[in-house]
Amino acid sequence: MNNKKLKVAIVGASGAVGQEFLRVLDEQDFPISELLLFGSSRSAGTSYTFRGKEIVVKELCHNDDFKDVDIAFTSAGAGTSREFAETITKHGAIMIDNSSAFRMDEDVPLVVPEVNGDDAFDTPRNIIANPNCTTIQMVVALKPLNDISPIKRVHVATYQAASGAGAAAMAELVEQYAQLGRGEEPTIEKFAYQLAYNVIPQVDVFTENGYTKEEMKMYNETKKIMHAPKLDVSATCVRVPVMRAHSEAIWLETEEPISLDTARKALENAEGVVVFDDPAAKKYPMPLDIANENPVYVGRLRKDITSPNGLSFWVVGDQIKKGAALNAVQIAQYMLAHGKQFGKNGN
Amino acid sequence: MNNKKLKVAIVGASGAVGQEFLRVLDEQDFPISELLLFGSSRSAGTSYTFRGKEIVVKELCHNDDFKDVDIAFTSAGAGTSREFAETITKHGAIMIDNSSAFRMDEDVPLVVPEVNGDDAFDTPRNIIANPNCTTIQMVVALKPLNDISPIKRVHVATYQAASGAGAAAMAELVEQYAQLGRGEEPTIEKFAYQLAYNVIPQVDVFTENGYTKEEMKMYNETKKIMHAPKLDVSATCVRVPVMRAHSEAIWLETEEPISLDTARKALENAEGVVVFDDPAAKKYPMPLDIANENPVYVGRLRKDITSPNGLSFWVVGDQIKKGAALNAVQIAQYMLAHGKQFGKNGN
Repeated sequence: MNNKKLKVAIVGASGAVGQEFLRVLDEQDFPISELLLFGSSRSAGTSYTFRGKEIVVKELCHNDDFKDVDIAFTSAGAGTSREFAETITKHGAIMIDNSSAFRMDEDVPLVVPEVNGDDAFDTPRNIIANPNCTTIQMVVALKPLNDISPIKRVHVATYQAASGAGAAAMAELVEQYAQLGRGEEPTIEKFAYQLAYNVIPQVDVFTENGYTKEEMKMYNETKKIMHAPKLDVSATCVRVPVMRAHSEAIWLETEEPISLDTARKALENAEGVVVFDDPAAKKYPMPLDIANENPVYVGRLRKDITSPNGLSFWVVGDQIKKGAALNAVQIAQYMLAHGKQFGKNGN
Repeated sequence: MNNKKLKVAIVGASGAVGQEFLRVLDEQDFPISELLLFGSSRSAGTSYTFRGKEIVVKELCHNDDFKDVDIAFTSAGAGTSREFAETITKHGAIMIDNSSAFRMDEDVPLVVPEVNGDDAFDTPRNIIANPNCTTIQMVVALKPLNDISPIKRVHVATYQAASGAGAAAMAELVEQYAQLGRGEEPTIEKFAYQLAYNVIPQVDVFTENGYTKEEMKMYNETKKIMHAPKLDVSATCVRVPVMRAHSEAIWLETEEPISLDTARKALENAEGVVVFDDPAAKKYPMPLDIANENPVYVGRLRKDITSPNGLSFWVVGDQIKKGAALNAVQIAQYMLAHGKQFGKNGN
């Protein structure tokens, strides 16, 4: 690893993921010479503390503010990412983008370091895309099994936290319970329907084939990240009244059968995965316990009783950490650890 | 249908399902000459109103209280069902049992009227078993598709309401939110872990193959109800902080492909099923809306993008109604409608 400290920018600093970037960069001891925070005109002027220093959020504008920036972590929605990509990257900064704007672009790598870290070095547009949260935590667990025998099909049902819809959505969920407790009508603004005491089988908008965009992200992004064009994923994505960790019930079918022991050992040895699986002791990952944790937790590992080539398990990951900010920072760490020279001439 | 009114007993009258029996029997205009209520020594003496009349709960004992009873709806746990089956049935009463005690016994039919109503006529022990709630709502939706082409495999992830653990569990969930709102530690007695803001990937105890008993009920009961020994079901059963309707994300694979149109029409025409499926208008069933509804609601119907022979959909049903009390009453209604003569000599 080179020891140079980097000039880092966070775009969308006031959002749930932006705030997590501040925490994760510090926790991960990321080598920063200067941190710049950017946001909308609404959040401009707000200040946040990073490593003991107050940093004021600047308004994101089409100017030369990114001139000496080495890495920009962007999380301000796909529209903002599209509009400002040129401004952010034109002087040489690497933009690690949390939105869906560029994920499927052929000249933009889509990276989960444990799966395809090396793809991060092929950045003709100086952009690296951070995958969708549900996809990240799934592929981290699929990778070690796919290495044993190629995975052909995946069925996945998600139990997605409110955090995926942002900080205001998390607050709305808490407020709904308070309102219901007082006998009032709950406020419904951030989700299509009341989420308290409910589950909503829709995340993102619907596409023509009956799947939502969120479900098609799991289909398309998994193929790209895993370099597995024949690996098909059928997802049902469901919002549940949980604060910030996503859970997924997964079935996968491999070309050759994988024994339970082999699968367990592969997952135990996999980077970024913690196997937390002892049914007799009622040990399995749950979103309440996994919130704020870095790794992806796997439990309920068992053979798929419907297929000799099938396995089933349950995976839980913090949506804002590994599902967003942490994975983006890990991409930068992977690049540093593998010799990337950042800076104007470092690309 | 014969017009005779029946002497009916409810065993476990004070429980969540017992209370629902009182409502469902009335709603369904079930022909009752006399209603008897039975319970534990703890609930004996409590009285409930049925059709304007107060009925006092009697303690369930080994005596001749069931002498003239035509139908006994029992929902007091498997232990009680096993202990009292002989007492209840020995004079000729038909016991329609909501517990898991006899479901897999070869000489006890396991019945969902829309699927295998005729099985209810083969009762050598005077016992008919009511299936597990998650299985009932699934098979009602599988049946019309299985009639078009036999289903080979099912993957199902459940989102199960607190009601499945009884009335006290529902109260505990509400209390947990109140306690958390006051900044207190939540009470955890009815579930293994805090359910508020959480999901728990365990319903019932674990078996040796890594599946829970609840999941193996879906595997075994589906085969029996549908007369389909080769139809395999792999389930992941998850408790979610919802009050009383269960949701299920289902993938199924049939021997021959079924077109989306054909599947939709079959479900629309199926007894007991309501297709509520218009993604463009954000219409899909949700547990908050389906609580207290009689039918099973199907939405999110689409082709399984991983298999030409696959379909996927989302099904929601009230756990206490179609998942328990209503199905049991419908079994009795089916028998009446098809000429069953109840009473001592009617078997």
